Amino acid sequence: MAPEAGAQPRVRGWVDGTAPALQERVLHAPPLAFVEYCLRGVGQVMFMNNPFTGLFVLVAAWSFDPWLGFGGTLGVVVSNLVALLMRFDRGAIEAGLFGFNGVLCGLALATFLAPKWDGVATTWIVVVSAGSSIAMAALAALFAKAWGVPPFTLAFNLSVLLFMITGLHTLRGRIGESISPLLPAVDGPQVSTALREHATAAVASSLDGWINAVFRGIGQLFFVNSILGGVLVLIGIAICSRIAAGFALIGVVIGTAVGIGLGASGVAIYNGLWGFNSYDACLAIAGVFYVLTWRSALLGMACAAYTALLFGAIASFLGPWGLPAMTLPFCFGVLTFVMLRGTSPLFTYVEDITTPEDHLARARAQAREGASAG
Amino acid sequence: MAPEAGAQPRVRGWVDGTAPALQERVLHAPPLAFVEYCLRGVGQVMFMNNPFTGLFVLVAAWSFDPWLGFGGTLGVVVSNLVALLMRFDRGAIEAGLFGFNGVLCGLALATFLAPKWDGVATTWIVVVSAGSSIAMAALAALFAKAWGVPPFTLAFNLSVLLFMITGLHTLRGRIGESISPLLPAVDGPQVSTALREHATAAVASSLDGWINAVFRGIGQLFFVNSILGGVLVLIGIAICSRIAAGFALIGVVIGTAVGIGLGASGVAIYNGLWGFNSYDACLAIAGVFYVLTWRSALLGMACAAYTALLFGAIASFLGPWGLPAMTLPFCFGVLTFVMLRGTSPLFTYVEDITTPEDHLARARAQAREGASAG
Amino acid sequence: MAPEAGAQPRVRGWVDGTAPALQERVLHAPPLAFVEYCLRGVGQVMFMNNPFTGLFVLVAAWSFDPWLGFGGTLGVVVSNLVALLMRFDRGAIEAGLFGFNGVLCGLALATFLAPKWDGVATTWIVVVSAGSSIAMAALAALFAKAWGVPPFTLAFNLSVLLFMITGLHTLRGRIGESISPLLPAVDGPQVSTALREHATAAVASSLDGWINAVFRGIGQLFFVNSILGGVLVLIGIAICSRIAAGFALIGVVIGTAVGIGLGASGVAIYNGLWGFNSYDACLAIAGVFYVLTWRSALLGMACAAYTALLFGAIASFLGPWGLPAMTLPFCFGVLTFVMLRGTSPLFTYVEDITTPEDHLARARAQAREGASAG
Repeated sequence: MAPEAGAQPRVRGWVDGTAPALQERVLHAPPLAFVEYCLRGVGQVMFMNNPFTGLFVLVAAWSFDPWLGFGGTLGVVVSNLVALLMRFDRGAIEAGLFGFNGVLCGLALATFLAPKWDGVATTWIVVVSAGSSIAMAALAALFAKAWGVPPFTLAFNLSVLLFMITGLHTLRGRIGESISPLLPAVDGPQVSTALREHATAAVASSLDGWINAVFRGIGQLFFVNSILGGVLVLIGIAICSRIAAGFALIGVVIGTAVGIGLGASGVAIYNGLWGFNSYDACLAIAGVFYVLTWRSALLGMACAAYTALLFGAIASFLGPWGLPAMTLPFCFGVLTFVMLRGTSPLFTYVEDITTPEDHLARARAQAREGASAG
Repeated sequence: MAPEAGAQPRVRGWVDGTAPALQERVLHAPPLAFVEYCLRGVGQVMFMNNPFTGLFVLVAAWSFDPWLGFGGTLGVVVSNLVALLMRFDRGAIEAGLFGFNGVLCGLALATFLAPKWDGVATTWIVVVSAGSSIAMAALAALFAKAWGVPPFTLAFNLSVLLFMITGLHTLRGRIGESISPLLPAVDGPQVSTALREHATAAVASSLDGWINAVFRGIGQLFFVNSILGGVLVLIGIAICSRIAAGFALIGVVIGTAVGIGLGASGVAIYNGLWGFNSYDACLAIAGVFYVLTWRSALLGMACAAYTALLFGAIASFLGPWGLPAMTLPFCFGVLTFVMLRGTSPLFTYVEDITTPEDHLARARAQAREGASAG
Repeated sequence: MAPEAGAQPRVRGWVDGTAPALQERVLHAPPLAFVEYCLRGVGQVMFMNNPFTGLFVLVAAWSFDPWLGFGGTLGVVVSNLVALLMRFDRGAIEAGLFGFNGVLCGLALATFLAPKWDGVATTWIVVVSAGSSIAMAALAALFAKAWGVPPFTLAFNLSVLLFMITGLHTLRGRIGESISPLLPAVDGPQVSTALREHATAAVASSLDGWINAVFRGIGQLFFVNSILGGVLVLIGIAICSRIAAGFALIGVVIGTAVGIGLGASGVAIYNGLWGFNSYDACLAIAGVFYVLTWRSALLGMACAAYTALLFGAIASFLGPWGLPAMTLPFCFGVLTFVMLRGTSPLFTYVEDITTPEDHLARARAQAREGASAG
């Protein structure tokens, strides 16, 4: 039998993959280590355990809107501080698993509360991000015990949605204008699916529309609604994993296509709303949770389409409270497809997640070993 | 000790019970086998693992409305094809466990989308039925791991409800007129509980009203709103199990009585809406999941009443989106009563489900054995 | 090693703690035993396994409104009778675990149905309380199997909420005026947070407002909206556990403060609506589920604040159906914090619940033992 180590090639390095050399070095310098795993937490929104991914995301947020960047940064810092204070699992903290909900809480509240740079709104970002760490620990225990899977970004979604629902009737008018409760109604064939930035803007050309939908979609996962933001996030993903970056692009295209195919509002599609859940779900299934093969690639694309449908459903479901779908579609989409492990022999589930490239290398090493042993 | 086989009498035959002789024969003829387990899938909506039950149901659907029959048939075919493609558990597929969600998806979308015989609607039946097989595999794994119970028709309910909620704001006007979102309001004592077909129709005589409520109720599980349809479905059930057919009748009467007792709209009651969840729940508890005794018969009736209350609640809950309760009441009602296994010594839970008659015969054989051993 | 008994000091007595001497005596007198565990059931709403706690609560309810007291008494009796009939676990019944949902069902329906002393409303109290025992057994099995935790008052919440949602469109006008469905809207800064009894009443002085918010809050867990009621309930808690009574006061203050801090309606705060979930959650975490330390005291206070946020969220979520949050916030708040067991070394989870005082004594005995063994 080959030694365990031989079967487990790891991406080693300072920048690429999970940047383990960097992690080993900074773990001895506490304040630096804190910064490092805060950044990893930002990257973990997309399962990228890499501080440079997180750095690119934060740059995208700060450059799009400093108040957004501030909110996200505050969120990830607070949620990690709470996790340290509560003495939650140190390894999980260092891998960024207590930061990804926090950064999303900060970004979401900076987006949906008003006005900007407000002391009370800042307090609420601190409170909700802190709460999201408690919720993450509890949900992780609930999910692990019952199903043996992680709760994805559910802690963020529940924390922010519950806070915003409370806020409809409290918060002294600090809910921004993008929140508008409305009784659902059956929209007839008049919904305009022509891609455009605002309801009143001119219709975009096909290429221009798609470029906007795709890159804004990649940015929208972090509430960054710009092409530049999307490009920065995509580069961030690619630093950790080129495979993941590729499936991010494929996923956002599929989500956008489902939106167009269903006949959704062209304004929502143009602004990336049909894409951001789908790309995160696509890269999760094609490479992260299942070893990449042409079959798992197809499964990832199916998951991207399924998640886009869930986006339409959840956005519509939340209509009476005027709230957005956040990343709930991603949570339920990925959860559904992750639960397929063990139900079909066609896919190889990854128990010990690092990067898609690493999973592939390990699977190939095991296959070689099996062949040479045979 | 008696041999295992001695304790396990099985209904053997070509038509009756689970028709095992037929299954053994057709399994060697692939295309025929596919048709056979598609039909079993249709019967499995009511836990009847029998192709003739399914055949009678499809005849009821086609004769009520060919577009409805087409939708259901397409749904069961697609969901089984996807299950085969995904290489889900073969035994489960052959027992019809990947068909019952699909047939319901097809029937539901044929009912709620407009217009009939539309290419786009047909595409959506294919997409949603295919998705329901993925959802079934995932939910079955979720439920088995956490609770050791099946997810019943939850995959159908979630797939169709999420698609229809999406459709409120997309689908280019293809949502039919029966979907009408409405803010709940407290209805005063003026609700008319007089049984009648439409709001504007004449009130039915008591006997006529009950006959309609009962048989339309039996048909409504498959969106077949006619007395003839109900009779066909009931005959289909009886081919597999006379016990189940009896409790179907008892269950639909109880559901109807609860509707009348609560003071629900007489139009809904007349059209069988208060009955269809209750009868499926009643036969599930009295005979299928618990060995039939007078106690489990009473439990089944209690479950029928409980499920009728859940129908009222879920239908009202879904009001703001204008969506029907589908078979969610049945899912939650049966789940509640199935979880009672192990909490009370009064009921014998069936681990290996075939037919109520067979469960009874096996329990009696075991009792005899125990007596002779003692 | 010390004998097991040495490590398990128990509060023994006729009145204090769990009053085990009383229980031992009355268990031999069946009709008296039934009364005794009905009263324990009332106390178990706040984890107080003590018949005198329950007695004080019922006195509070009867003295506030005899119809309310009647409803609660009927509810606890019916739910225990059903549990006996179904032969659910005898030890659980005797500890009051099949009564606490029933008493809440009775109190809630007496509050929300109209008119008072109505035969039909009485019937519905019987039906829903009976159903809550079935739901409790099923939910307890579901929660135990998946997560190893109790379902708290979820059976009450689901039973009453589902019944009331059904009732919006049925019940022939017997839904009281406090139920008013309303589409959520974003309330601006004009919400008045000044504490007062009715929208039209004069603003209370700060001290008077707080005294009302605190004691009405303690009473509101049992739908008793009066200072006297709150005092009676608090005395009832203190009979069983002074620690729990202390954290009840702390919890209700925190819940009230969160309501004021968020800018919620002062009328709701004055009437104790922001406090009743929080105090039950606070005492559950600080002492009942975790051994009392200064850390678990802080955790209990955090849980009280978290639960107050959940109250705001769930009350707002249920707006379209006009229904109140009941004790759902308490269920989810406590569930979240109970799931933290095992995720942090800072807290000692209690496996065998009696009273906070007893948990403390046992933990100290174990610590002494460990020290002397070392």
